Amino acid sequence: MFKSAASVERLANRLARLPGIGRKSANRLAFHILKLTKDEAFELADTIREVKEKVGFCSICNNISESDPCQICQDPKRQKNIICVVEETADAAAIDKADGFSGMFHILGGKLSPLDGIGPDDLKITELLHRIQDGEVKEIIIATNPNVEGEATALYLSNLLKPLGLKISRIARGLPVGSDLEYADSATLSRALEGRQEF
Amino acid sequence: MFKSAASVERLANRLARLPGIGRKSANRLAFHILKLTKDEAFELADTIREVKEKVGFCSICNNISESDPCQICQDPKRQKNIICVVEETADAAAIDKADGFSGMFHILGGKLSPLDGIGPDDLKITELLHRIQDGEVKEIIIATNPNVEGEATALYLSNLLKPLGLKISRIARGLPVGSDLEYADSATLSRALEGRQEF
Repeated sequence: MFKSAASVERLANRLARLPGIGRKSANRLAFHILKLTKDEAFELADTIREVKEKVGFCSICNNISESDPCQICQDPKRQKNIICVVEETADAAAIDKADGFSGMFHILGGKLSPLDGIGPDDLKITELLHRIQDGEVKEIIIATNPNVEGEATALYLSNLLKPLGLKISRIARGLPVGSDLEYADSATLSRALEGRQEF
Repeated sequence: MFKSAASVERLANRLARLPGIGRKSANRLAFHILKLTKDEAFELADTIREVKEKVGFCSICNNISESDPCQICQDPKRQKNIICVVEETADAAAIDKADGFSGMFHILGGKLSPLDGIGPDDLKITELLHRIQDGEVKEIIIATNPNVEGEATALYLSNLLKPLGLKISRIARGLPVGSDLEYADSATLSRALEGRQEF
């Protein structure tokens, strides 16, 4: 597109490889970056470098972190005897932002997905078992996503963990707060009925 | 969002300031960048730096360019006596990609927009007049966008350039190729009728 500026073309090509950014958006972004001040553009470049240089994974919970163990694992105020198992860091962040959970996290780093060749060995399941072994953990909340792969992962984990004598729970699936019964899909509705709770 | 990794948070904040990228996309992108290999992430950071370091503006046509004059202005195969005036580099790139034009470009760097405080002095109009002065130029095609500001800019330019005895033309406005008459807006239709051409 930008014949006379190969580096802008290169940047647009690079940006187009990011998820959710098509060819036209990439061109627009490259253009926008070109119009930023030098300081602003360099700041953007440096934060990208910084992320790769500074951020690693927590050796306990597999969360992304600049320190090891991560801030959550180091926090003395959190309940050490309850672990919430999620697929990705973003899931842990979402749960942490919602009120009502002050336990620990364990990030699997994905979900079971045989079609993509992802089996139990590709997830941080061994690490989870290690964490349980010391006997301090009393409850595991399985908070994988409520879709086919997430449910399969949850089922696999619960089968694996039940013999260890822990309390194993699964986050509730039902109608989202503020939603409309009329527009809910039937799978969600049947889950909501199944999981009904007494007043 | 990412309590335990301030630099990821910083990157997401920085990305969210780019046009068309909301808060959630920014988080997803930051995450994606985190998952890139070090080489890939550094390459992205470096192309951003490179763009700001290498790319400037052509002193003749105001196109973005790594060389001065730009490749288009240097190209001996192009017709020097016809200049296509556009608002932005991307417009020139679009016209250049379409077949049928092998003249020179002049990038105004914007359009007249009194509401945004952009007047003739904020556009590269003086530079355009300088280019015309040497007498080599015979025709000016005004290819500003077919919207209110673009038309106002075109009108202003044609009034300014007509006394110089050049051929001044405006790109045709009418029905887009492949479109449906039924769905065309009335402004486009009346333009298409107005600009009808004999077989």
